[in-house]
Amino acid sequence: MRVQYQVLIVGYNEDSCTEVARALAYEVGAEIARSGCILLTGGLGGVMEAASRGAYENGGITVSILPQKNTSEANPYSVVKIATGLSHMRNMVNVWSADGVIVVGGGAGTLIEVAAAYLEKKAIVSLAGSGGVADEYAGKYLDERRMVLIHKASTPKEAVETLLRLMSGRV
Amino acid sequence: MRVQYQVLIVGYNEDSCTEVARALAYEVGAEIARSGCILLTGGLGGVMEAASRGAYENGGITVSILPQKNTSEANPYSVVKIATGLSHMRNMVNVWSADGVIVVGGGAGTLIEVAAAYLEKKAIVSLAGSGGVADEYAGKYLDERRMVLIHKASTPKEAVETLLRLMSGRV
Amino acid sequence: MRVQYQVLIVGYNEDSCTEVARALAYEVGAEIARSGCILLTGGLGGVMEAASRGAYENGGITVSILPQKNTSEANPYSVVKIATGLSHMRNMVNVWSADGVIVVGGGAGTLIEVAAAYLEKKAIVSLAGSGGVADEYAGKYLDERRMVLIHKASTPKEAVETLLRLMSGRV
Amino acid sequence: MRVQYQVLIVGYNEDSCTEVARALAYEVGAEIARSGCILLTGGLGGVMEAASRGAYENGGITVSILPQKNTSEANPYSVVKIATGLSHMRNMVNVWSADGVIVVGGGAGTLIEVAAAYLEKKAIVSLAGSGGVADEYAGKYLDERRMVLIHKASTPKEAVETLLRLMSGRV
Repeated sequence: MRVQYQVLIVGYNEDSCTEVARALAYEVGAEIARSGCILLTGGLGGVMEAASRGAYENGGITVSILPQKNTSEANPYSVVKIATGLSHMRNMVNVWSADGVIVVGGGAGTLIEVAAAYLEKKAIVSLAGSGGVADEYAGKYLDERRMVLIHKASTPKEAVETLLRLMSGRV
Repeated sequence: MRVQYQVLIVGYNEDSCTEVARALAYEVGAEIARSGCILLTGGLGGVMEAASRGAYENGGITVSILPQKNTSEANPYSVVKIATGLSHMRNMVNVWSADGVIVVGGGAGTLIEVAAAYLEKKAIVSLAGSGGVADEYAGKYLDERRMVLIHKASTPKEAVETLLRLMSGRV
Repeated sequence: MRVQYQVLIVGYNEDSCTEVARALAYEVGAEIARSGCILLTGGLGGVMEAASRGAYENGGITVSILPQKNTSEANPYSVVKIATGLSHMRNMVNVWSADGVIVVGGGAGTLIEVAAAYLEKKAIVSLAGSGGVADEYAGKYLDERRMVLIHKASTPKEAVETLLRLMSGRV
Repeated sequence: MRVQYQVLIVGYNEDSCTEVARALAYEVGAEIARSGCILLTGGLGGVMEAASRGAYENGGITVSILPQKNTSEANPYSVVKIATGLSHMRNMVNVWSADGVIVVGGGAGTLIEVAAAYLEKKAIVSLAGSGGVADEYAGKYLDERRMVLIHKASTPKEAVETLLRLMSGRV
């Protein structure tokens, strides 16, 4: 069987999500499904829901890794629902489970996930033009140790293609 | 879309698994896939691997919820791999994520999962003849509060059918 | 500096605690403080609160390892309060942090903790006469692997003395 | 009984800790003990160990909240040792357990803790002159939501005094 990469999308939650970020997240999710990857998200609203919808409507497997200890709050585009009961700590489970991460907008919560992915040396691509953390850190390192570069992509398609290359070690 | 139940199988790990339990677990996994449910396991060997193989070879989605903080030790029949980094605590994530639980053999670790499922009032079916905890608790309550009965089934097919009825509230 | 053992007391929660178990737990907590050990509990009511009160009123350090992600529900006899945000999974943190465990009564939740302590091969002493799990498993092994014996004690003083011997390897 | 605040110190780990940060962390720990507060740290080296030593040598209660599932790697100035088994996720337990946070230097790991404290609206004081994250974020907000200010202090004494005022609501 071909390796199926697990790709995590992080970014704005429901409260702070812009329409631009939502549309971009949908496209990233769709691209992930088309490329045969499994989509991981935090399972709730905003970028998580938009990306899940994009993947779901394109036949992908979507995995919602939830903070609650039941699955009732998963967005409706969740094929697999994981009730971690870990509250915000579930972000680390997302990162540990991912082969690579794509950042779409985001605030302090997203920054935590990016920093965690950075410390775990995961492949990271930031989608320029999606706002917040994604724009702020695209093309940068998170601290002076320069552990992994946060790659910059200009479109959803480029973001997924770049990540696929990074995950397969072809960069 | 039809509801896809998430069914957890628990039981002997690699070290203590009998051939009988392995064969029964394979059949339970196969039945779960045929019934259109998603299979959750702890993702490692023994009953976990046998059940995953049964579901995988029958076209099911298998979800391996691992104790490690990386996915490299998941058994080869894992479609989705969750790296919880929670060590034994990941058993609770399994239980919280499940709509119902089937028990195949098992020692003290399995007893923890059954007790957790009992406290969370999940539907539980124990497969008689599979040994260990499954045989010891089939048809019983775990404490004097009598929260949920651990139902007894005699075959893999009966175990899945009983669980489907319990999960849908038809019992 | 002398080694300070960390001793975990597990047993009935507030809802199911008997007056007998409460009085015994208070005495066990008091003995732990007198012996210079640190008391660990789950930080809530029932046996947890009674033991904490016993230790607290005898000058001991009491550590409440809570399921919530804030410390507001800790019982009033908690010197140190740990907000794990882990819900029932915090039981494993209790066990991992403990050098030894004393069981006072208890239902299915306590059984989970005893099974976890057993799998981690911690020193375990069960207080006979306190009811529930403590009485059911005193003097027994939890499964056929016979990993560690659940020792039986007849009084709080004997329970602490036995545990001290077990923890120091003098048994 | 007087309320004993629980104060978390975060910053450089053993690998990246400077001598300046180590000396400052020792003084912050000493001040915390003198003020009657309980010190929480991650229990390992660098800023964690220096702060614990400062508190320990001034009679304070030091609590080491460890990533491992055993207590053997706690630094020698740990009075209470919590084995969370949560790996990096234990940082959230630190934050949830704390009434306030003091930042001394730090890289991406520290940034995660500061962001978590920010999202939980904890009182935060950053020690200027200690390097890294502490200097970068002193006097700032972490994102456009401006949830809580990361206060700036110039000395260990000022850091603890400022935090005490913030925790008691006197700012």
